[in-house]
Amino acid sequence: MRTTKFTSPLEWDRSQYQPPLPKALKGNTIAIEGELTTSVKDCDQIKELFPQSYGRPIIKLISSEKKIQKKPLKIGIVLSGGPAPGGHNVIVGLYRFLKKHHRDSKLIGFKGGLLGVVDNKSVVISLEMCKKTFNLGGFHMLGTGRDKIDSLKKKEATRKTAIKQNLNGLVIIGGDDSNTNAAVVCEDFLKHNIPCQVIGVPKTIDGDLQNEHIETSFGFDTATKIYSELIGNIMMDCISSRKYWHFIRLMGRSASHIALECALQTHPNLVLIGEHVKENEIKFNEIVEMIADLICQRFKQGKKKHGVVIIPEGLILFIPDFKQLLDRIDEMFGSNKKKQDWKAEDLEKYLDEKSDTETKKLFIDLPKAISSQLLLTRDPHGNVDVSKIETGKLLKWSVRKLLQDRATKIEKEEEEKKKEKEEKKEETEEEKKKRIKKESFITYMKHWSSMTHFFGYEGRCGFPSNFDCNYCYALGHTAGHLLAHGKTGVMAVVQNLKESVDKWVCSGIPITAMLNMEKRLSTWRPVIRKTLVDLNGKSFQTMLGRSREWALNDHYRSLGPIQFKGSNSNAITKILILNQGGDDTEDKIEYKSNGEKKDEDLK
Amino acid sequence: MRTTKFTSPLEWDRSQYQPPLPKALKGNTIAIEGELTTSVKDCDQIKELFPQSYGRPIIKLISSEKKIQKKPLKIGIVLSGGPAPGGHNVIVGLYRFLKKHHRDSKLIGFKGGLLGVVDNKSVVISLEMCKKTFNLGGFHMLGTGRDKIDSLKKKEATRKTAIKQNLNGLVIIGGDDSNTNAAVVCEDFLKHNIPCQVIGVPKTIDGDLQNEHIETSFGFDTATKIYSELIGNIMMDCISSRKYWHFIRLMGRSASHIALECALQTHPNLVLIGEHVKENEIKFNEIVEMIADLICQRFKQGKKKHGVVIIPEGLILFIPDFKQLLDRIDEMFGSNKKKQDWKAEDLEKYLDEKSDTETKKLFIDLPKAISSQLLLTRDPHGNVDVSKIETGKLLKWSVRKLLQDRATKIEKEEEEKKKEKEEKKEETEEEKKKRIKKESFITYMKHWSSMTHFFGYEGRCGFPSNFDCNYCYALGHTAGHLLAHGKTGVMAVVQNLKESVDKWVCSGIPITAMLNMEKRLSTWRPVIRKTLVDLNGKSFQTMLGRSREWALNDHYRSLGPIQFKGSNSNAITKILILNQGGDDTEDKIEYKSNGEKKDEDLK
Repeated sequence: MRTTKFTSPLEWDRSQYQPPLPKALKGNTIAIEGELTTSVKDCDQIKELFPQSYGRPIIKLISSEKKIQKKPLKIGIVLSGGPAPGGHNVIVGLYRFLKKHHRDSKLIGFKGGLLGVVDNKSVVISLEMCKKTFNLGGFHMLGTGRDKIDSLKKKEATRKTAIKQNLNGLVIIGGDDSNTNAAVVCEDFLKHNIPCQVIGVPKTIDGDLQNEHIETSFGFDTATKIYSELIGNIMMDCISSRKYWHFIRLMGRSASHIALECALQTHPNLVLIGEHVKENEIKFNEIVEMIADLICQRFKQGKKKHGVVIIPEGLILFIPDFKQLLDRIDEMFGSNKKKQDWKAEDLEKYLDEKSDTETKKLFIDLPKAISSQLLLTRDPHGNVDVSKIETGKLLKWSVRKLLQDRATKIEKEEEEKKKEKEEKKEETEEEKKKRIKKESFITYMKHWSSMTHFFGYEGRCGFPSNFDCNYCYALGHTAGHLLAHGKTGVMAVVQNLKESVDKWVCSGIPITAMLNMEKRLSTWRPVIRKTLVDLNGKSFQTMLGRSREWALNDHYRSLGPIQFKGSNSNAITKILILNQGGDDTEDKIEYKSNGEKKDEDLK
Repeated sequence: MRTTKFTSPLEWDRSQYQPPLPKALKGNTIAIEGELTTSVKDCDQIKELFPQSYGRPIIKLISSEKKIQKKPLKIGIVLSGGPAPGGHNVIVGLYRFLKKHHRDSKLIGFKGGLLGVVDNKSVVISLEMCKKTFNLGGFHMLGTGRDKIDSLKKKEATRKTAIKQNLNGLVIIGGDDSNTNAAVVCEDFLKHNIPCQVIGVPKTIDGDLQNEHIETSFGFDTATKIYSELIGNIMMDCISSRKYWHFIRLMGRSASHIALECALQTHPNLVLIGEHVKENEIKFNEIVEMIADLICQRFKQGKKKHGVVIIPEGLILFIPDFKQLLDRIDEMFGSNKKKQDWKAEDLEKYLDEKSDTETKKLFIDLPKAISSQLLLTRDPHGNVDVSKIETGKLLKWSVRKLLQDRATKIEKEEEEKKKEKEEKKEETEEEKKKRIKKESFITYMKHWSSMTHFFGYEGRCGFPSNFDCNYCYALGHTAGHLLAHGKTGVMAVVQNLKESVDKWVCSGIPITAMLNMEKRLSTWRPVIRKTLVDLNGKSFQTMLGRSREWALNDHYRSLGPIQFKGSNSNAITKILILNQGGDDTEDKIEYKSNGEKKDEDLK
């Protein structure tokens, strides 16, 4: 008997969990060709860029009596981009498929992301490695990286790796960029007659790799559950201490799916969805006003001094005037690429030159700590690093200032009134009551207390939920079947996810079908479009429809930690349910305590 | 059948959990008097201040055949201070005890902390309220507050409340200060012949309410489990991305128990225990040097660019020269209490006046963002608000600067060498290798990346672990038995916690026995001493003994989310095990995968 060393009892416990497989993948599985595809947009350009792989059919995996011929396969696999819970299960799923497919099959893991493919840094994946990571979080079996195979040199090196390793296929697990890269590598292999198939697997906790084919990317389920637990804990703190407003910033730079899902789960008093802010051109000061109004309203209505606001990481990119400011700063950075120590004066001068008085006013009014962050943090492309801007604090400080200004204004008005009053008679009981009420309101606004939180890294490597374990295990098997059937340039896709695993539908979707042309760093490139929150979609509309109710009442939900056993351990995200046509019925359920017996017990 | 509305399925699930009771509390329980007590220090002063309640015996609850006479009791209960998981179970435990004791008993909840007692703001606790909060986090059934009953006026109001409500007893759930206050209220009641007993219950996630009688305060178990999960997740991210150092700051201002427990659970590369820093008079720059050394060593040994450092919230209070700086600032604030907008120049001038050049140098060398935080954040007493100082960032920035300085220094040395070299012959292969190695080291130090996290509020209101559910339920019952036996001025205490619930020992310890005199805000007061980490204790020594191993190797542990069902759902903290004489054997276990069958499956 072998022993495997786990770091904790729960790791061991999870290693014993056996994800079920969809019916189509249980017995013999065959791959049938469905309809031919085109790209989502810019078909001509995409076709030109991907002459070999463009326009191929969708592949459906169905169970069959027919046995396919089995020969040993040698497959490479690589993890790319930020970690997401479930990655290991894609690998183990594929490993198990391959070993079952033919005992001489081999799975090669490339280390440290796509650069590991370029440099041919690899390891033969062993049973032991699979056991140690099965159903567990992290990407540490192979590591990961952010590099892409994007230069001629890197493409050439990748071809060499494929030949040297004698690979039948390469599986790239990653987000939109990495899957775009999978299409590029596939095309390059076809062009150079490298007999190595390429399969993509949709990963990202951000939820923006989602489209008519992909219902959700893996990791989103677990990450949002972890964040929702923490938000729920803070909400309970909120209604216990009753004195703080909490600004909770959640990961998700380009799209606000995480914020939306967590809002649907936890019912904050306010959630700012970037896409909604952009669509409605809500300016920075309008957001600050909106929050301050809510704070005042909650205090006036129920003396509530507490509240929870959820904001997505990339919010400022969606605020039109703030975006303008960020663009101006990037422009300025670009105007003298050698200069590193830009000062506030430099920007003000630059904005004067552009006669952009509005942006200048916005910048000058910002809290100093934030304006210096804007000028100091640069991403690898030399632009403002939005992820480093503490948006929660920005809002907190701006709201605090506005509340204090409002308090001062009311105070002055009151003083004026008092002066007029002095000449008149004493105040009535009614007037006194009113005055005391106003004074307590002024005191509150002056001493309003708040806190900020950022949840991001905590969620990328958590123990995958049962859903992500099952989903990733099925994705690994799907990739395996697609490889065994000689398919290339497709993404492993599993659909019908809101039903039980048994009913999940597995297929391969040509990646070129998801491509369009977009301008990235001043060059037009073929890319998989990032899916933003659909403002007409059911999940956003559901949130919107209830937001008024959540704003004033405390309909907070406390979900607690992810459980791996028990009746609710297979719950899936509300976005997935709603976007697939289901309903959010949970709030209508009145959970029953278990009846008379218990009541007697309690009395 | 009644229905209770829960906010989530797990809330409902938890409401069904029935905590077991210690054997002594199951049948008939009697209270016997044990040895008489004295206070831990300053006996004469404490005796003088508590003439009525001083020197009373320890009360032991044991099971007996004898039935006690039962009359209805009317008891008040109040939550005080920051929330801690399990508080609701103390209330429900007491509620159930009272209803079982006599059907006409009543439990009155005072709202919003001790001020609710003063102002007699109360609610009759109902079965429904208990059902809704049983085994659940938060203090929201009654709310909480930080006020104390500390003035003559408040004491008088409290007596009035007791009389008006016709209370037989008052249970105060809180930390060291609130329990001290319980002793004060008890003495006041005795002095004025108010027939209301007072019982304290030991709560705090910080773990500093712990002594020869109290093995642990409730909430510590759950909070440290939540933080450990999050730390473990970040550690898995660390070994997946392999590019960041994470500075994780944990709640716990006056003592470092949380940091110690989480370190024992997760094995970070470095944990800074405040008490250790103070004892060894480790200066701020020495800490920065120590971290930088570790960073360099890890890179040189294994090209490891990642690491995890755990720091307690109150670290800077323990660093001798930083403490001196904080004291100087407080002094300066005190020198002109009206002035609010202190500037760096003011402090520098003040330090010049005091000829305190060392402190001035420390202050000047601080990152600007931190030095301004020091001058801007004030606590309610007008002192620097240490909890608002971003110690993680302070360390991160200081370490980064030191690494950059080191890189520049080596670079210069290399240039010098090069100059000398130019006159000589070409470099050998050996020399080239060495040079490249050095260059990569310099590049690393220059571009060293790090992140900061703060975990605090996430842990105060989480779903209580089974341990905290059981412990608090037993505490509630213990308080009830002590009340039924007419005891006052005691804290409900449950011991032998590392054994199964059945074997737990329940008693009442006179609070005066825990008191000593301490100077607080320039006045000597009787207080329960906060328990700091014992540097000679087994838990600290265990950590210390393994810290070298954790520093260089990645022995990270990933605990995962708290589970409420399954084999490991009753695990308790390592500090509790170690301090009660147990061993940390967990790391020696090699968890076995379930044998041949599974291996075959995997192949």
